[in-house]
Amino acid sequence: MNSLHRYFGLLSIVALVTAAQADDPLPAWNDGPSKQAIVAFVSRVTTEGSPDFVPVAERIATFDNDGTLWSEQPMYFQLLFALDRVKALAPQHPEWQDTEPFASLLKGDVKAALAGGERALVEILMATHAGMTTGEFEQIVKDWITTARHPVTKRPYTKMVYQPMLELLAYLRANGFKTFIVSGGGIEFMRPWAEQVYGIPPEQVVGSSIKTKLEVRDGQPVLVRLPELNFIDDKEGKPVGIHQHIGRRPVMAFGNSDGDLQMLQWTAAGSGARFCLYVHHDDADREWAYDRDSHIGKLDKGLDEARARGWTVISMRRDWKTIFPEE
Amino acid sequence: MNSLHRYFGLLSIVALVTAAQADDPLPAWNDGPSKQAIVAFVSRVTTEGSPDFVPVAERIATFDNDGTLWSEQPMYFQLLFALDRVKALAPQHPEWQDTEPFASLLKGDVKAALAGGERALVEILMATHAGMTTGEFEQIVKDWITTARHPVTKRPYTKMVYQPMLELLAYLRANGFKTFIVSGGGIEFMRPWAEQVYGIPPEQVVGSSIKTKLEVRDGQPVLVRLPELNFIDDKEGKPVGIHQHIGRRPVMAFGNSDGDLQMLQWTAAGSGARFCLYVHHDDADREWAYDRDSHIGKLDKGLDEARARGWTVISMRRDWKTIFPEE
Repeated sequence: MNSLHRYFGLLSIVALVTAAQADDPLPAWNDGPSKQAIVAFVSRVTTEGSPDFVPVAERIATFDNDGTLWSEQPMYFQLLFALDRVKALAPQHPEWQDTEPFASLLKGDVKAALAGGERALVEILMATHAGMTTGEFEQIVKDWITTARHPVTKRPYTKMVYQPMLELLAYLRANGFKTFIVSGGGIEFMRPWAEQVYGIPPEQVVGSSIKTKLEVRDGQPVLVRLPELNFIDDKEGKPVGIHQHIGRRPVMAFGNSDGDLQMLQWTAAGSGARFCLYVHHDDADREWAYDRDSHIGKLDKGLDEARARGWTVISMRRDWKTIFPEE
Repeated sequence: MNSLHRYFGLLSIVALVTAAQADDPLPAWNDGPSKQAIVAFVSRVTTEGSPDFVPVAERIATFDNDGTLWSEQPMYFQLLFALDRVKALAPQHPEWQDTEPFASLLKGDVKAALAGGERALVEILMATHAGMTTGEFEQIVKDWITTARHPVTKRPYTKMVYQPMLELLAYLRANGFKTFIVSGGGIEFMRPWAEQVYGIPPEQVVGSSIKTKLEVRDGQPVLVRLPELNFIDDKEGKPVGIHQHIGRRPVMAFGNSDGDLQMLQWTAAGSGARFCLYVHHDDADREWAYDRDSHIGKLDKGLDEARARGWTVISMRRDWKTIFPEE
């Protein structure tokens, strides 16, 4: 029995070392109130017998994407994708050379192209996102995401996701949470890479969409993407999208802008323990710094409400040890 | 060591007995080609190294609800719910006494009420399904499903689900499949009980829907159900709903009517191994018998296509040992 004792003694030491290494599931987060608030909340809702215990089936966590899981400057990455697509498609559209907003875009003047406001944006969107089958669009996005580089950092876009949030997603899943994206971005723009990059499968991606239509081509059914908006998953749309798609109220919600405020309010209004968090972009050195006056990812009303209600507001500068994963 | 051997020997016997009991995961299915086809397919796609192996993340199985997971005669159960709601709401609507289709309904003449066709149906639907918050509607459905009884069998509706299909759902989940409902029925009519009855959580229910709108009432955000159709998840709508909601093509699909044909075609058109199955209602003694001429759950084109393409068509009469679970 002595040797068994020694054997189990050894095992215990191994277990302790492993536990110490695994002890910090969020190594890219600096110790501080934000990290503590996350860990304390997860502990409260996952400890059986705790008054705030939440059964596994109800552990839903929703994440905004742009500015919450990856960067969104100097403009939403999906718009950069659309601009790349305009260039790629230009040879098939000689008429774009003197039609706005395409003419300005092709001359490299994004500002002039977008001066046409929402109408210009929708035109660019439909010209680049509609007219093909869903399978074709998926391949276009996959090709782009594996080759394109961010105009400022020159990194692949999949390396402009936030390392601390990757850890947070994995940590929540390890604690029985189902993690969902709930984004104003296009659902079909995120799905082709969200599983590999975030570990979030297509059925857990909620986003804006255009309509599709079933057709038979060469004897095979295909879904054709139509130049018609179906759903805008932003602001008041986020609770609608969450309800339509998930059918359960989130227990935790994560955002970074006023466009996420309704999602956080909807989450907070549930009975029982709820957790709301804003990512505050205040790190001009390592990422970007913007909030109340930004036209992308504006955080103004949301910041006031978060402070008034005691939601967690994380400072990228203070709370995150690293921003991006290693390339 | 002798005692250890004996101990493990005993354990092996226990394991063998348990395995024998668990050996048949589908005890309500008679042995025959249908059951064999299901088990053989699941084995092919879940055996590592098999040329047809499907990774767990891609194991999506979609089930129609009405006529596939539970009965649909003498009319869709959701319509029976709506009729019960008309009666319950009538005191608040004195004008219904002489407005069609409500007047006929309240006199018990369903046939006359539905003579108004789709317009009458939509009026009944909107009067009973819209105008309240999503939370209120969920409670109304829960109250109804726990108290209402089927007009013919007098069983609770949750005991008019098919025992063989409950076993099939559990069997597929045990083999790594995510099981989804993809129904023409209302998504919010199914979600309140689908988890308890079928083991299918709300986020895996796809169905028809009306629009909702975020409002603030008494300082709290609520989603109000509007009398406006959002999406019809039937026929050509099923592949659209599957793509929108799941974002992955099913590996297995189960239906019972021509309304499911496009879902089965969409599934069959995927690359790699796919499995399509029709439930054929041919058991007038234990359930109902209907197919080509039925105005509910008509199975005509689908039956021809299933036979031409070698899809599995199960006979309720021959293939199912029992139909309904014990009360």
